[in-house]
Amino acid sequence: MAKPTPLSGFPELLPAQRQVEQQVLATLASTFELHGFGSIETRAVEPLDQLLRKGDTSKEVYLLRRLHEESAEGHAGMGLHFDLTVPFARYVLENAGRLEFPFRRYQIQKVWRGERPQEGRFREFTQADIDVVGRDTLPFHHDVEVARVMLDALARLDFLPGFRLQVNNRKLIQGFYAGLGVSDEGIDEVMRLVDKLDKLPSDKVRELLVSDAGITDEQAERCLALAAIRSVDDSFVARVRELGVDHPLLDEGLDELSTLVRACAPLATEAVRIEADLSIARGLDYYTGTVFETRLDGYESLGSICSGGRYDALASDGRTTYPGVGISLGVSRVLVPLLQRGLVTADRSVPSVVLVAVTDEESRGDADAIATALRANGVPCEVAPTAAKFGKQIRHAERRGIPFVWFTSPEGTGEVKDIRTGNQVAADPATWQPPTHDLRPTVSRLASLAPQPPMNKETNP
Amino acid sequence: MAKPTPLSGFPELLPAQRQVEQQVLATLASTFELHGFGSIETRAVEPLDQLLRKGDTSKEVYLLRRLHEESAEGHAGMGLHFDLTVPFARYVLENAGRLEFPFRRYQIQKVWRGERPQEGRFREFTQADIDVVGRDTLPFHHDVEVARVMLDALARLDFLPGFRLQVNNRKLIQGFYAGLGVSDEGIDEVMRLVDKLDKLPSDKVRELLVSDAGITDEQAERCLALAAIRSVDDSFVARVRELGVDHPLLDEGLDELSTLVRACAPLATEAVRIEADLSIARGLDYYTGTVFETRLDGYESLGSICSGGRYDALASDGRTTYPGVGISLGVSRVLVPLLQRGLVTADRSVPSVVLVAVTDEESRGDADAIATALRANGVPCEVAPTAAKFGKQIRHAERRGIPFVWFTSPEGTGEVKDIRTGNQVAADPATWQPPTHDLRPTVSRLASLAPQPPMNKETNP
Repeated sequence: MAKPTPLSGFPELLPAQRQVEQQVLATLASTFELHGFGSIETRAVEPLDQLLRKGDTSKEVYLLRRLHEESAEGHAGMGLHFDLTVPFARYVLENAGRLEFPFRRYQIQKVWRGERPQEGRFREFTQADIDVVGRDTLPFHHDVEVARVMLDALARLDFLPGFRLQVNNRKLIQGFYAGLGVSDEGIDEVMRLVDKLDKLPSDKVRELLVSDAGITDEQAERCLALAAIRSVDDSFVARVRELGVDHPLLDEGLDELSTLVRACAPLATEAVRIEADLSIARGLDYYTGTVFETRLDGYESLGSICSGGRYDALASDGRTTYPGVGISLGVSRVLVPLLQRGLVTADRSVPSVVLVAVTDEESRGDADAIATALRANGVPCEVAPTAAKFGKQIRHAERRGIPFVWFTSPEGTGEVKDIRTGNQVAADPATWQPPTHDLRPTVSRLASLAPQPPMNKETNP
Repeated sequence: MAKPTPLSGFPELLPAQRQVEQQVLATLASTFELHGFGSIETRAVEPLDQLLRKGDTSKEVYLLRRLHEESAEGHAGMGLHFDLTVPFARYVLENAGRLEFPFRRYQIQKVWRGERPQEGRFREFTQADIDVVGRDTLPFHHDVEVARVMLDALARLDFLPGFRLQVNNRKLIQGFYAGLGVSDEGIDEVMRLVDKLDKLPSDKVRELLVSDAGITDEQAERCLALAAIRSVDDSFVARVRELGVDHPLLDEGLDELSTLVRACAPLATEAVRIEADLSIARGLDYYTGTVFETRLDGYESLGSICSGGRYDALASDGRTTYPGVGISLGVSRVLVPLLQRGLVTADRSVPSVVLVAVTDEESRGDADAIATALRANGVPCEVAPTAAKFGKQIRHAERRGIPFVWFTSPEGTGEVKDIRTGNQVAADPATWQPPTHDLRPTVSRLASLAPQPPMNKETNP
C-alpha cells in the first residue's frame, strides 16, 4: 500500500496534539457538569427532511447510501448532521415524556459539512454545545446562565488566546426598527443587510438599505448608528436612547441585554471579555431574543467561533412548544489552526509519567511488578520495550517527553530519575508520586500567543 | 412537526443511561492511560478501496454523497469506517515518520455498518480499541500486555456482568494441522470449518472436514479433539501433547499461549476470567499468532464482545512492515442491551449534587452566589428554575435524583438538606463537601445481574 495522504477538510491530530484536544474537551465537560448540564449524544444521522428544514442550503449535507443497497428502503433519505441543534430539537421531541424540564444538556460531537475546506472551515469537526430547554416557557435568567457557563468554560482554557463574547438581542433590534417605522416585512430585510457590516463598507450597506429594504436615508442612518454601538457595561442603553426611538419591544430588548451584560461582567477577565455589540444579528437563524457571537483574539478572520442565542420555539410538536437558549463552541475551528501552527503544544506524546527500565529480559517481570504498583497508585507508566543499554532507554523516554525513568533493584523497589534534571533518588513504587503538575501532560502556548489587552480595560472588574 | 420515532439500529440513550456510558468510557480511558496508551481519533471516513481491502462483504459500508454534488470529484469514493483497525493502519502509515514505535494507542469512537439491526447488532455503535504497533518487529510480550490491559479495564467495570476472555494462538492451530499432515492450502479451510463449531454440531463439522477440506477421518478427529481443549491455566499444553502431533510452529504456539495464560492468571477475579480455548480462531481475519474473544456472562448469545489478536503485518508500505497486536471492546454491544432492559442504572439524570433553592426572584442572585461558591469547590450544582414553594423545589430535586437541597440564608450561607434522609444542617458553601460517593452519579446493577461463579473456580487465584 502506498503512503496515504491526508483528506482535505478532515483534520487529524498527532498524539501530542490530541493530548491538547483531550484537555480542552475534559475542561469543557467538567465545567458544564459543575453547572448541572448533563451529557447526551445523538446518532450521527438524521432524516433528510429534518436536515433541510432550516432551509440554509449553504450547509451542504452528506447523504448516506449503503454499498449493497437492495431496495429504495431507508437510507436514501438519511444524512449526516451538520450541527447539534437540529438533532437536539428532534431528541427533545422524541423523548419529551422522559425528560425533566427545564432540561440542561451539553453535547460534544463531530458534525459534517460538505463545504469547500479553508482555514477554520472543515468537512468534519467537533462542536461543544450547551442548551437549556423548557416546556411552554423558559425564564430569561437561563439566557444569563448559558452565557455565564460558557464564559466560565472559556476562562479555564487558559492556554488558548483570549476570547471576546459579543452579545445582542433581536427584540432590541426589531423593536428599534419597528419604532423607526419600518414595516414588519421590512424588518427582516434590514436585519439581513445590517448583518453584512462585517463584509461590506457601511456606505454600501446604507445604499442597500434604501434600495433593497425601501427605507429612507434618515432611517438607514439611524439603523447604522444603532449597529455602531458597543460597550462592555450597560452604558449602551443611554446611547440607544439618544437615537430617539421608542417601542415596547425595544424596551424589552434593552432590559434583557443590560441584565445579561451586568450579570456577566463580574466573570470577565483579561483573557475572556464580554461586550454588548449591537451589530450582531446572527443572520438567517431563527433567534428571537438574545444572540451570541465570539471572536478569538488574533484570529478574528476565523469569524465567530462560539455562537448561539434564544429560540422561542427550539422544537414544537403542534401541541407543546419547547423554547430554548444555547451556545455552541467550534472546538476544531479554534484548536486545529493553533495546533497545526504548533502554537499550542503538550510536553509529551504519551500519558506515561514513568518509563520503567528493563535490566534484562529475564527480569521483565520485576519491571512489570513495579509498573503495576505505580498504576495502583494512579501513576500512568509504561515498561521499556527492550532491555537495551540504559542510555538508550533514557533516550526512549526523552523522545516521548516521559519525565521519569525507574531503575528496578532486585529487592523490588529501585531508584527514580528525573531525566530533565538528572536528579535520581531511591523510591518505593507503592508510595512514590510525581509532582502533581507532572501527572498529566502540560499544555502550553508560545509567548506570542499572549492575549491582547482588552479593548476597554478600565471598565473590566 | 409530528413526534419523531427512533431509527432502528441507531441507539440513543436517555440522560441517566448516558451517565452510565460516560462512566464506562471514562474508566476505560483512564485505565488505558495508566498503561501508557495515548488517545487518538481518526476521521469518520476512509477511501472506499481501503474499506473494501479486507474483502469481508458482510460488513456493509455506508457510502457518502454530497447533497449538492457538482462533479464526480472526491466523495463518490468515500465511506464511513466500519471498525477502528482499518483507519488505525492507515493513520500509522500516513504518520509513520512522526510517531514513536512501539506505538501504543487507544481509540474510542463510533463506527457504522449497514447491517440488519438485531439484539447487540447496531448500525451505529461505539468501540474501544487498544493496539501496540511496532516498526519491523514487535516482541511477544506486547501480546501479554494488551491482554493484561483489557483485563484490568474490564475488572474496573464492576457494575457490569462478568467477562470471560478466551485466548488461543494461530501458530498453535496451524502448527498442529501442519504436524498432522494437512497441506498448506488445506490449513485455512480446516481453520474456517473448525471455527463453525459454535454454530454447527461437531458431527457436521467432522463431515465437512472430510468432504470439503479433504482430510482423513483420523485427522478430522484430532482437529476436533484439539478444538475441545480448554483450561484456565497452562494444563492445556499436556493435553495437546497427548494428541501426539509434532511441529516447530505448534511448539512456538504452545509456548506463546502458555506464557500468555500464566502472565494473565494473576489478574483473574471472580468476575473477569481468562482461559485458553483452543476452538477460537477468529475466522477470516488476518491474525498470525495470539487471538482473543470474550463472552459476557449471561449474554453469551451476543457472541464475542471483545476480540482481537496479533497481526504480523497490521500495515505495510512495501518497504517497512508494522506488526501489531490489539483488542477491541464493543462498548455499545455490551451496554445498550443492559441499559434498554434497565438492568444497569445511574441514580440521577443530572450531574448536580445540589439544588440551590430560590426564596423569591429578587434573591436569585444570592442563590447564584451560593452555586458559584460550591462550584469553586468542585461541587456540581444547579439553581432552582423558579421561586416555587420549597416543597415543590424539593420534588424538583427528587425527580432528577439530586441528593441535596441548599436553602440560602440572608447572610450568604444557609442550610443543606439531604433529601434522602431529611437530615438538615447549617453549612458554609465555601467549605461544604458532599460525601465522596455522592459527587458523581452512582451506577449500579440489579442483583439478578450478579456474576455467575467461574467455570473452574478452584484454579483461579
